[in-house]
Amino acid sequence: MASKESQVVRDHWTRGAEEAQRPADPTEKKIDHWGDLTGEPGGVDYLEIEVAGLPAMWAVPKGAAHDRVLLSVHGGGNVSGSIYTHRKLFAHLAKAVGARALLTEYRQRPHPEPLDDTVTAYRWLLDQGVRPEHIALVGDSFGGGLSLTSMLRARELGLPTAAAIMLISPWVDMTVGNQTFETNDATDPFFKKQTVQWLADKFLNGVDPKEPLVSPLYADLRGLPPVFVQVGGDETLVGEGVELAETARKAGVDTQLEVFPEQLHTFQMAAGYAPESDDAIAKFAAWVRPRLGLA
Amino acid sequence: MASKESQVVRDHWTRGAEEAQRPADPTEKKIDHWGDLTGEPGGVDYLEIEVAGLPAMWAVPKGAAHDRVLLSVHGGGNVSGSIYTHRKLFAHLAKAVGARALLTEYRQRPHPEPLDDTVTAYRWLLDQGVRPEHIALVGDSFGGGLSLTSMLRARELGLPTAAAIMLISPWVDMTVGNQTFETNDATDPFFKKQTVQWLADKFLNGVDPKEPLVSPLYADLRGLPPVFVQVGGDETLVGEGVELAETARKAGVDTQLEVFPEQLHTFQMAAGYAPESDDAIAKFAAWVRPRLGLA
Repeated sequence: MASKESQVVRDHWTRGAEEAQRPADPTEKKIDHWGDLTGEPGGVDYLEIEVAGLPAMWAVPKGAAHDRVLLSVHGGGNVSGSIYTHRKLFAHLAKAVGARALLTEYRQRPHPEPLDDTVTAYRWLLDQGVRPEHIALVGDSFGGGLSLTSMLRARELGLPTAAAIMLISPWVDMTVGNQTFETNDATDPFFKKQTVQWLADKFLNGVDPKEPLVSPLYADLRGLPPVFVQVGGDETLVGEGVELAETARKAGVDTQLEVFPEQLHTFQMAAGYAPESDDAIAKFAAWVRPRLGLA
Repeated sequence: MASKESQVVRDHWTRGAEEAQRPADPTEKKIDHWGDLTGEPGGVDYLEIEVAGLPAMWAVPKGAAHDRVLLSVHGGGNVSGSIYTHRKLFAHLAKAVGARALLTEYRQRPHPEPLDDTVTAYRWLLDQGVRPEHIALVGDSFGGGLSLTSMLRARELGLPTAAAIMLISPWVDMTVGNQTFETNDATDPFFKKQTVQWLADKFLNGVDPKEPLVSPLYADLRGLPPVFVQVGGDETLVGEGVELAETARKAGVDTQLEVFPEQLHTFQMAAGYAPESDDAIAKFAAWVRPRLGLA
């Protein structure tokens, strides 16, 4: 049974769905309280910088290996989310890994700007002298898709790829055709097929939804770094997460998949609070540390 | 009329009162989500340090005067609150002032440990070479009381006092005798007389509630630095805030008082969201900047 602490994630998405129904009040100032789900990691410093003209943030756990970096790409359907909403989530992971995290932004515009900005951030890290085998990517939801496509694009550009990719409920199929949109419709309060279709249309802006650089599920994944996919068993995006892992495995990619029963989209946001989320973070850390050459 | 954004503060205290009624579940992990009321200031770095063995945090706004410091003492009734719950609140003020903030902790124990630790933090700042005329104190609720008593104690010890003190709904009267506990009982959802009495008893642990170093309302305030008191018109602590300002003024202290109509205890926590909170922060900043020698 899901822990009572993990209920905060369900409450969050339920409230989000209710708010989406209400007519918008343009006079009311809106604060994105997504990150409020996350407990305080503690012992982490946060430093804002600019990366190629976009906001970014270093999360630096006390005692972290300075030369190991998690390039952290937040989600939010390409319409919301920020380095602030995801500060604590990625800091939990950085602390567990013992590495710095670089949280990056991208222009929340149609393809290809989000991809371009993520590739630019990766290239910036390399330019800083961080070795590719010391970089792991991590992304949730739309940021999960970008974590994959940025490595596909890096491969195209002849850049070395990173050491590993950690995917939190990755959104990788812009056709929005997976059957779990139907089979999990009752258990997922927010990610209804029409909602995700609306987000996909906004991002695609006419681009073919099977284009590999928008939907990495349809990409040739051969040669990609090791991938660890975590998804919630109750979310509508579980199907494409599982399918992605199968596709990666068939392409010879070192692949790990874990479906967390009764959990929802990006349930890791309750890190520091819900045991399932802490467990998920710990599993990412144990998996990625040797791949970053950390004992 | 109070803004609809400021309703988050009322919701927070109402929920807090409801939770206090419910039997505690010792198996459930509790995260203090107080700081969730506060919008993200942005453009502020956060660095954790230790000050005399206790956790502390620098909040460093981009472009802030490095040699000007707000010594920031959080509230929480001496039973809750932390450098994390108050991170964004004090960062908003630091950003508006253009100074660094040093958020400090104190042992949440009976008198005199909280006072001792706050004086130690002040002395530590002086030892770092920060000039007293470049330091302002800011504290909310129990932290407001400590901001005052630490300066009274500094005076006793022959230390130079700081340039200014900013008080957010300060709790300064451990007799819990002010008439606004009765007159505002209906409008304040949380700070009922018996609740505050319980907190006072815990802090006093037998000490006379009129002892000046636990209840600065009964202290000789002569020679204190300039004081700005902000209180909410609907809170039960408004009476002692107003009385403190009168007492300070009579003692010849340069005193400013503002009662924000229809607002509750520490409503400044909704900074970055509610206009009343942003207004309150802006007024503190405009008041304190010249007192710190900032143009």
